[in-house]
Amino acid sequence: MEARQNEAIIDCDIHNVVPAAETLFPYLPEHWRDYMSRSDFKGPVENYYPAGAATSARPDATPPTGGPPGSDLALTRAQALEAWGTEYGILNCAYAIECVHNPYGAAALASAVNDWQIAAWLEPEPRLRASLVVPSQHPDLAAREIDRLGGHPGFVQVFLPVRSAALYGNRRYHSIYEAATRHNLAIGIHFGGVPGNPPTPSGWPSYYIEEYAGMAQVFQSQVISLIVEGVFDQFPTLRVAIIESGFTWLPSLMWRLDKEWKGLRREVPWVKRRPSEYIRDHIRLTIQPIDAPPDPHHLQQIIEQLGSDELLMFSTDYPHWHFDSPADAFPAGLPAALERKIKSENARAFYRLEARGPRDAEVHG
Amino acid sequence: MEARQNEAIIDCDIHNVVPAAETLFPYLPEHWRDYMSRSDFKGPVENYYPAGAATSARPDATPPTGGPPGSDLALTRAQALEAWGTEYGILNCAYAIECVHNPYGAAALASAVNDWQIAAWLEPEPRLRASLVVPSQHPDLAAREIDRLGGHPGFVQVFLPVRSAALYGNRRYHSIYEAATRHNLAIGIHFGGVPGNPPTPSGWPSYYIEEYAGMAQVFQSQVISLIVEGVFDQFPTLRVAIIESGFTWLPSLMWRLDKEWKGLRREVPWVKRRPSEYIRDHIRLTIQPIDAPPDPHHLQQIIEQLGSDELLMFSTDYPHWHFDSPADAFPAGLPAALERKIKSENARAFYRLEARGPRDAEVHG
Repeated sequence: MEARQNEAIIDCDIHNVVPAAETLFPYLPEHWRDYMSRSDFKGPVENYYPAGAATSARPDATPPTGGPPGSDLALTRAQALEAWGTEYGILNCAYAIECVHNPYGAAALASAVNDWQIAAWLEPEPRLRASLVVPSQHPDLAAREIDRLGGHPGFVQVFLPVRSAALYGNRRYHSIYEAATRHNLAIGIHFGGVPGNPPTPSGWPSYYIEEYAGMAQVFQSQVISLIVEGVFDQFPTLRVAIIESGFTWLPSLMWRLDKEWKGLRREVPWVKRRPSEYIRDHIRLTIQPIDAPPDPHHLQQIIEQLGSDELLMFSTDYPHWHFDSPADAFPAGLPAALERKIKSENARAFYRLEARGPRDAEVHG
Repeated sequence: MEARQNEAIIDCDIHNVVPAAETLFPYLPEHWRDYMSRSDFKGPVENYYPAGAATSARPDATPPTGGPPGSDLALTRAQALEAWGTEYGILNCAYAIECVHNPYGAAALASAVNDWQIAAWLEPEPRLRASLVVPSQHPDLAAREIDRLGGHPGFVQVFLPVRSAALYGNRRYHSIYEAATRHNLAIGIHFGGVPGNPPTPSGWPSYYIEEYAGMAQVFQSQVISLIVEGVFDQFPTLRVAIIESGFTWLPSLMWRLDKEWKGLRREVPWVKRRPSEYIRDHIRLTIQPIDAPPDPHHLQQIIEQLGSDELLMFSTDYPHWHFDSPADAFPAGLPAALERKIKSENARAFYRLEARGPRDAEVHG
């Protein structure tokens, strides 16, 4: 797909990557700089995307200056923003803060990542918006970080990894939603996470393809939990983006939840509407990687089964590798009005982004 | 739906329930009779279906003679077999043997349940077939039980609860598949299970509706594991029934697995064909409870997206309650040939059942 004249694009999933522990030193208190310099502790030791897996990075995304794919603003500008004529790009920094067991170390690192995001990404590039990295394993500390930076105009979302030690509907996380709604931020639940517990209900898988394909099930568990625990009843302005999840599983989940809610709603009397209504009102999903059928007609059926043209938001998932050419990045054969909604209008409404034509942005092209 | 003249029905999911621990005493060695009489140990303390949940039992299924729904052959005959003119009914006894920590106690109880199934269900009712209850948490003991009774013509399947401590593709379970294929038995992976670990990848849910609706995700993890670990490559004659699972999630799972297999197949070189081909060759699903959309047209789309007319098998899930009248038990608007396949032909081929017209069975109506 070539970006058409005046066709707005909002890319809801671009990954910026902390290139090295030392990158964060200017943003860390002296105690942690000292601690990280003198010990083997360098922050999270794991990440969501194994180097060398075919899905992890497109081959041309390694910066010529060194560093991992996604760590260089100039390359991100060229490959993610310019290549699409993108009006806004939403950064999701999948820094695995949730695997840091030291609570105050985790909080300090999260703050440092966010200050680095402001200095290295948001200030030099006005097309970018970002997600707050928070120590989600300690919701009170996460809420504190949201309160510290939630008023910064560059942040539009709080990043939560979909894999977590407890389901996100659980009361322990509600302080995060309270803080997010206080600052009018969305919650972005994103592929991956390193919480320590296995990614399936039946223990550890043996191979990465199981974890990768199976992540759709983790998302489904979280969506069920958010609705059934009444999160959207308690926080009626809360908006949740489901990111890098696929979406063809959603109609089946809505049908199943709606049906069983009819039989079992007595135990969750606060869930007053059909679960699918909560989903359509509060949840949005990014499109890449598309868990797409080989027959495009089947994908059109699924999109129709969603029962709303407002659920999907465009994403490239840069620098991860899901398509070879831009022409493969977007579902084919959709009505023009729906295409516009997916490419920009749904995200603009969801993230409360001001409209500006792609050609109006002074930094553009 | 009224059973039509000469329309064969094979019901692939009828639940027979052990009414009380003492029921098993005639089939237990003296040591265990003594142990259970003198201690508080009465076998599994949990079951898959909370009493009183709307999905657990239809209101008229409690036997007039007492005991839990599903424990009385006369009532099962009347409500499950006669009501449908059923040619064959497959019993799935969801006796939660997997929660018994004592390995030899678990094995003894499983054997007792199976001997009770022969005496109380299979011998008096030739329309019934049954699933072997095995201590799946100890695959070597499970294989021994399969070898003990796998030659009995009443058993057509080995029952595995979908919730398990490890994923079923794991090598630790292969001795079960080896024994099952040795006796030409199917594997039936069934809703529920009490393995001790939580039913989601993110810990324990707070409410039963989460567990009930979320069971579809547990099934999906198991299907991924079986394929990716190469179970069907190692046991090319293995057949797996997915029971009480819903099926509208399957097209999305096939698409996602096929797509990611293209990118990540290098780590699992034994998976030589697209994952969806393994599913279509080796896996079947029962239809109740249907995770059905409100619009029947959408259900027809999903059934078409399955890409095979051989995947679905009729079930009532008796005595659980998913529909008020038989007319609601079967998807509407399917072609007659597909309807025949779902109602009997797919199950007949899968379970290797001899054809006999419903009017030919001497015990029938």
